[in-house]
Amino acid sequence: MKSKGYRFERELVHMFWSRGFAAIRVPASGSISYPVPDIIAGNGNRYLAIEVKMRSNLPVYISKEDVENLIKFSETFGAEPFIAVRISNMGWRFLGLKNLKQTRNGYKIDDDVFYSGLEFDELVGNVKQKKLFE
Amino acid sequence: MKSKGYRFERELVHMFWSRGFAAIRVPASGSISYPVPDIIAGNGNRYLAIEVKMRSNLPVYISKEDVENLIKFSETFGAEPFIAVRISNMGWRFLGLKNLKQTRNGYKIDDDVFYSGLEFDELVGNVKQKKLFE
Repeated sequence: MKSKGYRFERELVHMFWSRGFAAIRVPASGSISYPVPDIIAGNGNRYLAIEVKMRSNLPVYISKEDVENLIKFSETFGAEPFIAVRISNMGWRFLGLKNLKQTRNGYKIDDDVFYSGLEFDELVGNVKQKKLFE
Repeated sequence: MKSKGYRFERELVHMFWSRGFAAIRVPASGSISYPVPDIIAGNGNRYLAIEVKMRSNLPVYISKEDVENLIKFSETFGAEPFIAVRISNMGWRFLGLKNLKQTRNGYKIDDDVFYSGLEFDELVGNVKQKKLFE
């Protein structure tokens, strides 16, 4: 099931383009039965597969299925999987799958976990740094 | 402007998944003002950006803008650009940009050029071959 927050997915797509990544929103329809993320971004060096979660408050619960689909897509396509969480008044954070807290039926992102995620500048900034020292 | 032939774009997405690529259709809406292709596919080794042209007959004319957008996206994202041409009763062929014939206002694909394109098996088969001899 695709997340709500269409507007925020578009915001994120714009953010990527402004930082030298080509990014697209993936439509839910037309890809039925395949494990597709919400956004794919690439800059010739890194490829990101992103599941977007927009909420008013923490914690954010994520189904096991969502995570498994993100892994499946990322491994097949060749991309780094991230959960992009946008909480009202707290902005965006980008979590790798190892950052998630496991629950009985899936995963969650609470206050601890949220702040362990990368800010957008850190997510896209890694690239620059990497290039400088190669 | 996006091509018609929604059904054939979906057919192509299925073909990629069946050969070990993760593939998605890119929606025209929601990506407005960015130079996006019709399909993106990746298999962890190769990344393809594909503009789909479905027609009843050859030649197929392609605008300069379509080709420039495909180049722009491919360079930014990090993908190989291809034009996927599907002609009724002739099936699919996949053309690199150097295969296109230049016209006054853009490009065209006529009989000569069409058959210089790769068949789908060749397009996705390159990978296997590459891996065998690495």
